[in-house]
Amino acid sequence: MTRENLIAQIIKKQSFLCIGLDVDIQKIPKHLLDTDDPIFEFNKAIIDATHHLAVAYKPNTAFYEAYGIKGWISLEKTIHYLNNNYPELFTIADAKRGDIGNTSTMYAKAFFEDLQFDAVTVAPYMGKDSVEPFLNFEDKFAILLALTSNEGAFDFQTQKIESIQLYKHVLKTSKNWKNSERLMYVVGATKAEYFSEIRKIIPDSFLLVPGVGAQGGSLQDVCQFGLNKDVGLLINSSRGIIFASSEKDFATRAAREAEKLKKEMQQILKERY
Amino acid sequence: MTRENLIAQIIKKQSFLCIGLDVDIQKIPKHLLDTDDPIFEFNKAIIDATHHLAVAYKPNTAFYEAYGIKGWISLEKTIHYLNNNYPELFTIADAKRGDIGNTSTMYAKAFFEDLQFDAVTVAPYMGKDSVEPFLNFEDKFAILLALTSNEGAFDFQTQKIESIQLYKHVLKTSKNWKNSERLMYVVGATKAEYFSEIRKIIPDSFLLVPGVGAQGGSLQDVCQFGLNKDVGLLINSSRGIIFASSEKDFATRAAREAEKLKKEMQQILKERY
Repeated sequence: MTRENLIAQIIKKQSFLCIGLDVDIQKIPKHLLDTDDPIFEFNKAIIDATHHLAVAYKPNTAFYEAYGIKGWISLEKTIHYLNNNYPELFTIADAKRGDIGNTSTMYAKAFFEDLQFDAVTVAPYMGKDSVEPFLNFEDKFAILLALTSNEGAFDFQTQKIESIQLYKHVLKTSKNWKNSERLMYVVGATKAEYFSEIRKIIPDSFLLVPGVGAQGGSLQDVCQFGLNKDVGLLINSSRGIIFASSEKDFATRAAREAEKLKKEMQQILKERY
Repeated sequence: MTRENLIAQIIKKQSFLCIGLDVDIQKIPKHLLDTDDPIFEFNKAIIDATHHLAVAYKPNTAFYEAYGIKGWISLEKTIHYLNNNYPELFTIADAKRGDIGNTSTMYAKAFFEDLQFDAVTVAPYMGKDSVEPFLNFEDKFAILLALTSNEGAFDFQTQKIESIQLYKHVLKTSKNWKNSERLMYVVGATKAEYFSEIRKIIPDSFLLVPGVGAQGGSLQDVCQFGLNKDVGLLINSSRGIIFASSEKDFATRAAREAEKLKKEMQQILKERY
């Protein structure tokens, strides 16, 4: 998918919502457990009920790998279902990969060619030659971990390197990498006060923002400092939407939660664009 | 596996060799392509030919994920083969994972419980709560990326935080994490001069050392500065061993390369222990 297509979809749907498909089998409605592939059936129902409210879906690969081959099959069926039925949606493999050059190329192939995701999240610790292989694919995106939403973000990311915080160093340095126009960044909603600083360094890039809802981040605060001329934000919610109910009405209840966020976004977009 | 078992195996075999099973289907002998699972058949032959020379095996997950479900099945068969036939071997999933707490727990379950690896490599960027979930498993190890062997290591890892290089900050900080006795560290052989500094911070930990051979690192240099009272090193070689030949003799040729490294290690161990 091109950046232009993503922006057009946001404007058309008046939403920049990303729904995280972090499916814990303990939490899905009991009646799905009798099906052949409960995780896929759950995802399918959630996607069908919410696709008009969201612009992106983000399965976190950990939740699939934890079930071995079966989990990997559920992941494959989910991305195929998304691509075949809703090709306008932006798809993100939240995999947090990153390795030496030839190995990163293998990961890129796995997610971009084999599974046909539009984007994959990448950890920056190993530097330029661990990220650039992800940027060699046309109309595909690497979403670099910049400032994450967890407590541990303060262990290293906000530490100062020659007076500049590490995550800013990551932002600045990565701008010089080859095909850096294919980079997006993960910035946690729990750190809304950092967004204006971040926008000074990367005014144009899209930011994938976890941490709204369950983790306590505020959509209003994030938008105040994070929106740019192309919107430039994808707000992710996982548990808050997909586990809104564990009964048979789970999909409609998920849609209701998605709708709430979507309406808030619509209001913000109307005021600004 | 316990640390004591690993050390006992090293002393018994007079080797601290780790063989990387980074299997690229383009590079494996043609005659294996007719089998049902060429990657597993390749691994099986390599393992059978070299198990007495090495103490650890390390499949890099990227090379399996790149082939989707089929690749994941090859990985599962490989680790089962190792565990069932050579239970004394230390097994490492080179996966470079790391995510927010509950998600890291899912990864830990995937590699420690479902696949039954002894260790998994973990990226430190997201800090304490992204690594600690891997340390909750008895007799299992998380191998933290500290100073990697690639060029990109100089982008962030060797940058100074308040006058201390980031990778040293990672070493120091991680020592205070819960169950930190289950941590090992990745330190590239291409940076041998750093080992004495590293040993000042973490004298007792095991280090997993890639970069000997194909990437140009010297075993002698690494040992001079990196060995500790328990040996404390696992030297990894992947391509240099497993792709020594692409003919039918690939397994015996792999064994010959492993034997060379093993003999060099034996000499070093004899002199020092």
